Amino acid sequence: MAPLKLGMVGGGHGAFIGGVHRMAARLDGRFDLVAGAFSSDSARAHASARDLGIEAHRSYADFREMAKAEAARSDGIDAVSIVTPNHLHGPIAEAFLALDISVICDKPMTATLAQAQSLVAAAEASKGQFFLTHNYTGYPMIRQARQMVAEGALGDIRIVEANYLQDWLSDVPLDDNKQAKWRMDAAQSGGGAIGDIGTHAFNLACFVTGQCATSLSATLSSHVAGRTVDDDARITLHLESGAKGHIWASQVAIGNENNLTLAVYGTIGSLRWAQENPNIVIFTELGKSPQMITRGGGAENGAAAAVTRIPAGHPEGYLEAFATLYREAAEAIISKDRSGVTLGVQDGLDGVRFVDACQRSSRDGASWIDLS
Amino acid sequence: MAPLKLGMVGGGHGAFIGGVHRMAARLDGRFDLVAGAFSSDSARAHASARDLGIEAHRSYADFREMAKAEAARSDGIDAVSIVTPNHLHGPIAEAFLALDISVICDKPMTATLAQAQSLVAAAEASKGQFFLTHNYTGYPMIRQARQMVAEGALGDIRIVEANYLQDWLSDVPLDDNKQAKWRMDAAQSGGGAIGDIGTHAFNLACFVTGQCATSLSATLSSHVAGRTVDDDARITLHLESGAKGHIWASQVAIGNENNLTLAVYGTIGSLRWAQENPNIVIFTELGKSPQMITRGGGAENGAAAAVTRIPAGHPEGYLEAFATLYREAAEAIISKDRSGVTLGVQDGLDGVRFVDACQRSSRDGASWIDLS
Amino acid sequence: MAPLKLGMVGGGHGAFIGGVHRMAARLDGRFDLVAGAFSSDSARAHASARDLGIEAHRSYADFREMAKAEAARSDGIDAVSIVTPNHLHGPIAEAFLALDISVICDKPMTATLAQAQSLVAAAEASKGQFFLTHNYTGYPMIRQARQMVAEGALGDIRIVEANYLQDWLSDVPLDDNKQAKWRMDAAQSGGGAIGDIGTHAFNLACFVTGQCATSLSATLSSHVAGRTVDDDARITLHLESGAKGHIWASQVAIGNENNLTLAVYGTIGSLRWAQENPNIVIFTELGKSPQMITRGGGAENGAAAAVTRIPAGHPEGYLEAFATLYREAAEAIISKDRSGVTLGVQDGLDGVRFVDACQRSSRDGASWIDLS
Amino acid sequence: MAPLKLGMVGGGHGAFIGGVHRMAARLDGRFDLVAGAFSSDSARAHASARDLGIEAHRSYADFREMAKAEAARSDGIDAVSIVTPNHLHGPIAEAFLALDISVICDKPMTATLAQAQSLVAAAEASKGQFFLTHNYTGYPMIRQARQMVAEGALGDIRIVEANYLQDWLSDVPLDDNKQAKWRMDAAQSGGGAIGDIGTHAFNLACFVTGQCATSLSATLSSHVAGRTVDDDARITLHLESGAKGHIWASQVAIGNENNLTLAVYGTIGSLRWAQENPNIVIFTELGKSPQMITRGGGAENGAAAAVTRIPAGHPEGYLEAFATLYREAAEAIISKDRSGVTLGVQDGLDGVRFVDACQRSSRDGASWIDLS
Repeated sequence: MAPLKLGMVGGGHGAFIGGVHRMAARLDGRFDLVAGAFSSDSARAHASARDLGIEAHRSYADFREMAKAEAARSDGIDAVSIVTPNHLHGPIAEAFLALDISVICDKPMTATLAQAQSLVAAAEASKGQFFLTHNYTGYPMIRQARQMVAEGALGDIRIVEANYLQDWLSDVPLDDNKQAKWRMDAAQSGGGAIGDIGTHAFNLACFVTGQCATSLSATLSSHVAGRTVDDDARITLHLESGAKGHIWASQVAIGNENNLTLAVYGTIGSLRWAQENPNIVIFTELGKSPQMITRGGGAENGAAAAVTRIPAGHPEGYLEAFATLYREAAEAIISKDRSGVTLGVQDGLDGVRFVDACQRSSRDGASWIDLS
Repeated sequence: MAPLKLGMVGGGHGAFIGGVHRMAARLDGRFDLVAGAFSSDSARAHASARDLGIEAHRSYADFREMAKAEAARSDGIDAVSIVTPNHLHGPIAEAFLALDISVICDKPMTATLAQAQSLVAAAEASKGQFFLTHNYTGYPMIRQARQMVAEGALGDIRIVEANYLQDWLSDVPLDDNKQAKWRMDAAQSGGGAIGDIGTHAFNLACFVTGQCATSLSATLSSHVAGRTVDDDARITLHLESGAKGHIWASQVAIGNENNLTLAVYGTIGSLRWAQENPNIVIFTELGKSPQMITRGGGAENGAAAAVTRIPAGHPEGYLEAFATLYREAAEAIISKDRSGVTLGVQDGLDGVRFVDACQRSSRDGASWIDLS
Repeated sequence: MAPLKLGMVGGGHGAFIGGVHRMAARLDGRFDLVAGAFSSDSARAHASARDLGIEAHRSYADFREMAKAEAARSDGIDAVSIVTPNHLHGPIAEAFLALDISVICDKPMTATLAQAQSLVAAAEASKGQFFLTHNYTGYPMIRQARQMVAEGALGDIRIVEANYLQDWLSDVPLDDNKQAKWRMDAAQSGGGAIGDIGTHAFNLACFVTGQCATSLSATLSSHVAGRTVDDDARITLHLESGAKGHIWASQVAIGNENNLTLAVYGTIGSLRWAQENPNIVIFTELGKSPQMITRGGGAENGAAAAVTRIPAGHPEGYLEAFATLYREAAEAIISKDRSGVTLGVQDGLDGVRFVDACQRSSRDGASWIDLS
Repeated sequence: MAPLKLGMVGGGHGAFIGGVHRMAARLDGRFDLVAGAFSSDSARAHASARDLGIEAHRSYADFREMAKAEAARSDGIDAVSIVTPNHLHGPIAEAFLALDISVICDKPMTATLAQAQSLVAAAEASKGQFFLTHNYTGYPMIRQARQMVAEGALGDIRIVEANYLQDWLSDVPLDDNKQAKWRMDAAQSGGGAIGDIGTHAFNLACFVTGQCATSLSATLSSHVAGRTVDDDARITLHLESGAKGHIWASQVAIGNENNLTLAVYGTIGSLRWAQENPNIVIFTELGKSPQMITRGGGAENGAAAAVTRIPAGHPEGYLEAFATLYREAAEAIISKDRSGVTLGVQDGLDGVRFVDACQRSSRDGASWIDLS
């Protein structure tokens, strides 16, 4: 099957997530990157394009121009990946969706709730599809967990615990750290740790339990002098079923590189998973020995097997999980069947609503905010 | 040096913690158990005494009688261990302190704040000493951590995280589970998870950081039908220095046996420790590789070395940590110098005040309660 | 930079390692798969080609025909990946090398020593390059280890321990297990565990220490009724410097999925690494605390950083390590500079010589065989 | 039940294992230490005795004198612990056994095979009992493993792997290291790593599988300049059933403190255990997820439960395992029923025969030595 044609906005020299999206798009051979607006600086954009093997006439400095030009080509792109700072996600996505080009958008979906709501409308009006890359949902053992919860292996869920700890912002970042720079500017990012990693934890808790949050109470803190966005966030959630959720997202927790963990406790069993060693999920039935369920191992279920590439014991990592979202997007674009897609514009709205609610709650003394 | 003479109240047949105290008292050879009121049921008391090799005339069914008789003997006990349900700790401790017999008391110190305050007064008026057995403070790697924090190895403390997860109360306990029974009765225990294990987590956070909490907000929950005490507690603390503390204590977290963990994050470093594998503490300096500091290993400091019995790699466990508190009590009783004692009546009061504040906060919608 | 054009021999439907090579080739965008002889069965070959998006006229059923046709095209392949059963590696590689097409060959290089020697000559006579995919050498933390050993961080090496444990052949394999079938036939595989995984362990020990083995003693065993090849191998090595090496390779070690571990002990330090959690290597200096050096972390050295794609804490896995060998092959093919290539035809010969020596030693009661 | 009266030979100031035996003897309250010959230097002996609370007239400088005097007392010792350097074990044990005093002897049983054979005869002729403290057999999860193997949970045993790695002798030891000094003198120790820790690994392999070794091949090495005993030993065993055993004992493996591990692989399952985290054993049935069986947990069997003191998740360690051997000795002495005793004089002879055979094999180029 011929690969789909992919464009990209953002992700030029010095960016982290652009390269990740490109590797993820390539891994399963379902996309060819053929066009891009890799920077709003025209010289940088073209230099990046050249390095990436993009033909010069499909290298753009302006995303609107790119959308128009690609839509007009008979061999125009099937989808565009958006990997810019958060405040640009909405406008860019809308520009492509308006021309019925599918969008694969990094998280959080937008920097503001207004942008998110606008984007939902745009996505609904478009023949293009919208995909959100909360990439951790692509891990096989996360799929395993979701299926096990859905099948009742844990009984009724009592408690969901999603912690996402990093330490790279424990101190004032160096001047040349491009990644840190825009994240520290609320106008570009929409928030600090809450948007950057808190949304991942929130999404994962909802994804695995299959439940939405109905209300939350949040405390956002900042631990570094001069920092204007949060670098540590604590959230309590009430889920639909009455279960309670807890999220701790921190970027000042020294000794944690990208330590996202999920634990789900039910009436008859539990599941525990850690992103830094992602090929195992520990399942415990009340009164029995904990079991280490492995990707590709004897207890792998169908949902996990569907996204497993290589045998047990051959670790799949972050890029493979990310690539799964790209593969699923390709299949949905081709088939126009979104049943295999895990996250869309509504999940993106949920995430932005979550950030917005956390910020309001925290400003108001951790008051409870209704999300339903 | 001849061992001290020890009495015990509680801890007869079927009890858990009584046996632990006896092993802890024996391990270093600093105490001989010579008297006891092991049950308020006289037949049970004497049967337990017989099994424990206590002479019949020093087996009592009533703790007041025991206090009086032992105080009157020339070879009377030097100290009494109190290992009853919580609501009896106060009255028993006061009975012995009134006769200048030292008291080694299990936690929480009392079931109510009024009892705790009364006991503080009694302890201050007595020539006997008061020792509280928050046994986790006896672990060498906890002492290591406390010294490292005090010496500034972590910089200024930002966040303290103490979680204590168990699963043995995930379901309605069996009728014959004596341990569960009194803990589920607030009149005897003073509370559920908050008193039983939450106080340990609170104590550990304060002990290692060397800081008191100035205020807290708590949410206590109960997850099992018919249960009248909490089995899950979430607490946010403000510490003296401005650091934040978080405690999660749960007895319904399936897959966790006695999973007490402590993490302390500072401006330049962090420490992480887990009770179920207690001979290691992970120390990370910002920007460097995490180090596994081991009990007895090359990076052990003086505070840890002082309570280390055997070489590195030969695991010391729960009983050894407990025994350290007994050894330190023996030394303090003999020397009348309490400088080596880690926990006294004031810490007990802090713990009961913590439970009381958590209960009040939780009843009042997680409102902030002043502790200073 | 335009991707190189890649062909493949073997790796049709039902194969494992073919798919791995394809993902590895794609990940960094340095190769496009454009031709293949995916099976010697013509119908299967073309079906696989179709699924892989290969144009029909570049799908071949015969590798010699493919070599000839591709060599004749102006847009012919730059390199061919060989992913057949072992006994075909040699003839296929020689066919392409004879036409100056570079070869990327799975391990062991050949099924017999005679084939290996012939292939060495063929490679030396060719303008094409030869690359051997002992993929575990592509892990960043293995590169880290090699550089640390070379820089003397461990002092003089005393002991190297490489164990490779699997369990998938613990029982008689199912009839339809294509992977197991050819491996169990010595005519196709050249041997059992010793060739399949023992060579990986041997290669890793040599690669990280930078030393060749001068002699060995081996015991090969078979634990399953009716099995004619070894499924468990124990080898003692003498290395050039006088250090000792030990290899244990087993495919009947229940509970081990793909548990390849390496430990190197020197006079002043040691390194320990495990493939199933490959982003960490534990470094211990004598008398100090073990350190967890992580991929992307503060102690990462240049050799590791050169093959690291994404930040610390975002696990890279088996495919990424494999892809690194493809990226390095692409760079060498383009630059004609092999200084960045880790493994060539001589390493392949070493591996086959190792297998041959192990088999002779084992037949002769674990006698010592000279390798120098 | 009144404690038994215990004497000790060796274990004065500066000794390690003497203190361990004393704590082990005390923990369960089944022994009172009442007499000792703690050193052959009379002043040191009495100083140690005084510190240990031994009455002056029961402190001896000569073990023969002690045996005679204690045998003559109506309240003489019931048993003596022997914790001297190895070459004295035999003579001391025989002196006490000759007077029908039971002996609890550290391992290896003697320094020479002749001593061991003589001691077997002495033990058989005595009314006193003989107990050998291969203390690792006292761990609950080792008892769990032994019962599981005996019950067939692993099927037929194929491979037993016992590794015992330390690093404390990686360099020339300091002059004042009393522990290292006598171990480095073959006349006192009878050998190096092979006797000090290799015998533990050998014993554990036999104990858990319930099998004796019928033959072995060994290579003993020494890695430190000037060292006259081995510090690294590799042994291959043939066990009665045809299973193979492998032992690696090293005292120069930097980064390993006291890293004794055991793995047993059978036809249908496996068990893996590590002494440094001893409260867990991992059990894997072929094709299923590995299970973490914990001390005190739901899958604990009767053999483990019989030696478990405290609930799951409250770690028991090295001293508790050691104490179990003391408790079992006390019970056997009182009941004269040795059915609960795990190790006696025959096991001691096996261990010394193992050391002797390893030394002969190694001198003879790893030749196979018959043990049957």
